[in-house]
Amino acid sequence: MDGDLLLPGERLDDLQRCGYGIIQDPQKFCFGMDAVLLSGFARVKPDETVLDLGTGTGILPLLLKAKTEGRHFTGLEIQPESADMARRSVMYNGLEEEISIVTGDIKDAANLFGASSFDVITCNPPYMTDTHGLQNSSKARTIARHEICCTLDDVIGQTAKLLKPSGRCYYVHRPFRLVEILSKMSAAGIEPKRIQLVYPYVDKEPNMVLIEGLRGGKSRVTVEPPLIVYKAPGEYMPEIREVYGY
Amino acid sequence: MDGDLLLPGERLDDLQRCGYGIIQDPQKFCFGMDAVLLSGFARVKPDETVLDLGTGTGILPLLLKAKTEGRHFTGLEIQPESADMARRSVMYNGLEEEISIVTGDIKDAANLFGASSFDVITCNPPYMTDTHGLQNSSKARTIARHEICCTLDDVIGQTAKLLKPSGRCYYVHRPFRLVEILSKMSAAGIEPKRIQLVYPYVDKEPNMVLIEGLRGGKSRVTVEPPLIVYKAPGEYMPEIREVYGY
Repeated sequence: MDGDLLLPGERLDDLQRCGYGIIQDPQKFCFGMDAVLLSGFARVKPDETVLDLGTGTGILPLLLKAKTEGRHFTGLEIQPESADMARRSVMYNGLEEEISIVTGDIKDAANLFGASSFDVITCNPPYMTDTHGLQNSSKARTIARHEICCTLDDVIGQTAKLLKPSGRCYYVHRPFRLVEILSKMSAAGIEPKRIQLVYPYVDKEPNMVLIEGLRGGKSRVTVEPPLIVYKAPGEYMPEIREVYGY
Repeated sequence: MDGDLLLPGERLDDLQRCGYGIIQDPQKFCFGMDAVLLSGFARVKPDETVLDLGTGTGILPLLLKAKTEGRHFTGLEIQPESADMARRSVMYNGLEEEISIVTGDIKDAANLFGASSFDVITCNPPYMTDTHGLQNSSKARTIARHEICCTLDDVIGQTAKLLKPSGRCYYVHRPFRLVEILSKMSAAGIEPKRIQLVYPYVDKEPNMVLIEGLRGGKSRVTVEPPLIVYKAPGEYMPEIREVYGY
């Protein structure tokens, strides 16, 4: 590969899709299963435009570009180092025409891009309010996991402004905040229309929830079949292998 | 049994608990799996008082009396024929001291019983708004299934008034109304604290949702492991056999 795209400590990981790779620094932050499952849950139709709020190293735009026929994908990221890594991954994959990485703040997104400007918005936001759980030592990880730079209200409020009428959003989050998320989406006019719970095992509590919202939708939601991750320790269920592209 | 407790067309069904029976008329309405699962999901602590809103033939008070150490159980039912059947079931089981059946309207419940008067409220409300689905020919079934005599707002509004501070409610409903239910409970001050989705098979969409609310609770919810009904057609999963008492 083009070795000059990698900085010290970084590595290039294979995305198992279209030969794409992603540059990550394991000392800072690597994408998790939540991003991969969100890329499988989101529906992007041919020619649609997509914005990923808080894109980190750009995993969602890369996976959605690989899996869908969307026209253009934008990733917004507040941390310059992560945005820079994402841009270098875009260059490595030769996707400069299809993916833009913008350095900026989610709270300012509607000003940056204009109201009603995207067909689809995705977000894998920080799960923890500042008081939940210990904050991680790496700054990139801390910002990715805790509501330091943006809150759930910011994400939902900006989504409501940025989506075109009848535009759709896709979030992944922790089930313990489900009531708050659904209530706030509904109040903001992006009605939850599809929900899927991700259970690590068939007899365990879910540890993720995937949600589709529809700007201006009516109140009626479909809860999908359960997404169960492991058949046995270390052995993925077929649905998970399919999302990963194994 | 006491044959004089049964009217023409009625039958006595075994509840598989404490030798209790329930009088039902299969031409009118028989309890379903939703009531049984709600009785397994609800938590009634020793000495607590329970009100079941829209009790029908009294299945919830009977099952909760059998399964818990609650002190007293009240069933409120608007249809005189159903209330009469419920009272005769209470007599058959010799539970006149522990279970009261009151004929009355859910919309009037807080006036009937007084504010903040129960530790626990249960409800298996009509699932369909008037416009959803065909209305059934039997009046008892139609009222049980469609929001003719009471709406979700009535149920939640009355629950919020009737529960003691820190009292708990337990509802069973259809997943397609999940967002509406959770938002309205939260807005009414009975915070959803525990949710369980009931999937008929491990690879199918859920067809029921069980919800616990806590009056005055903070926003943080536990989603339980999935409750899966059938292992194979006609063969219940062990969790379901346990709830039924087989």
